[in-house]
Amino acid sequence: MKRAIDEALKVQNDVPVGAIILKDGEVIALAHNLKEETQDVTAHAEILAIKVAQNKLNSWHLDGCEMFVTLEPCPMCGWAIMQARIKTIYFGSYDSQYGAFSKLELNKIANSPIKIYGGINELECDKLLEDFFMRIR
Amino acid sequence: MKRAIDEALKVQNDVPVGAIILKDGEVIALAHNLKEETQDVTAHAEILAIKVAQNKLNSWHLDGCEMFVTLEPCPMCGWAIMQARIKTIYFGSYDSQYGAFSKLELNKIANSPIKIYGGINELECDKLLEDFFMRIR
Repeated sequence: MKRAIDEALKVQNDVPVGAIILKDGEVIALAHNLKEETQDVTAHAEILAIKVAQNKLNSWHLDGCEMFVTLEPCPMCGWAIMQARIKTIYFGSYDSQYGAFSKLELNKIANSPIKIYGGINELECDKLLEDFFMRIR
Repeated sequence: MKRAIDEALKVQNDVPVGAIILKDGEVIALAHNLKEETQDVTAHAEILAIKVAQNKLNSWHLDGCEMFVTLEPCPMCGWAIMQARIKTIYFGSYDSQYGAFSKLELNKIANSPIKIYGGINELECDKLLEDFFMRIR
């Protein structure tokens, strides 16, 4: 999760979220939120990390891969993560409003075998978001 | 919807889905499902059309835009469509299992003002899918 937090710290003037993907314990993708910078509503850290991993593996089948992300995925990213067949997701902060897993339970709706662990390095991930929202207020 | 159906017909060896985006009555984006062709789990017609429209408008704010798509969006695409602030969506076939709007009601969860009209040219859109699934069986 430390690597994902480092990614989140690279975000400029946007919600700080970082994500990494591992295969067989090796990091194959790192990404951070680029929505405002690229003016692309789909450029969340998770989607960008999935694209990097797909390119590296020449396949959209990310079976066996694990993702670490500093904030619980939104429904867009959560669905993409399950469609890509990522095996395990570890997230930091919970999204109590629109969280794909803890709130909307999209994994149950999709009957997905994905394993989900929330609240990893939670305080540190929460602080990233708090500092950002404090700054823009 | 005829233009979206024409887009769907361009799909090679994958679920035939086409999408177009209009602004002020003018088509600004056309796209079709390229998931298998590009080995990108996010390359659904709707996401690709949003990216084309964003590039054309140099902004992720697609306020006032309308989308026509031959199949009801999945949760990934439905969330992206709402995040991009698309005003109105017209879809052909219903997805009674994972439809973002008719089934999962993500628009209500997001408290989104998006207007949704399903079942447009429904028989023709259904036939596209039936022909595809018949062929691969």
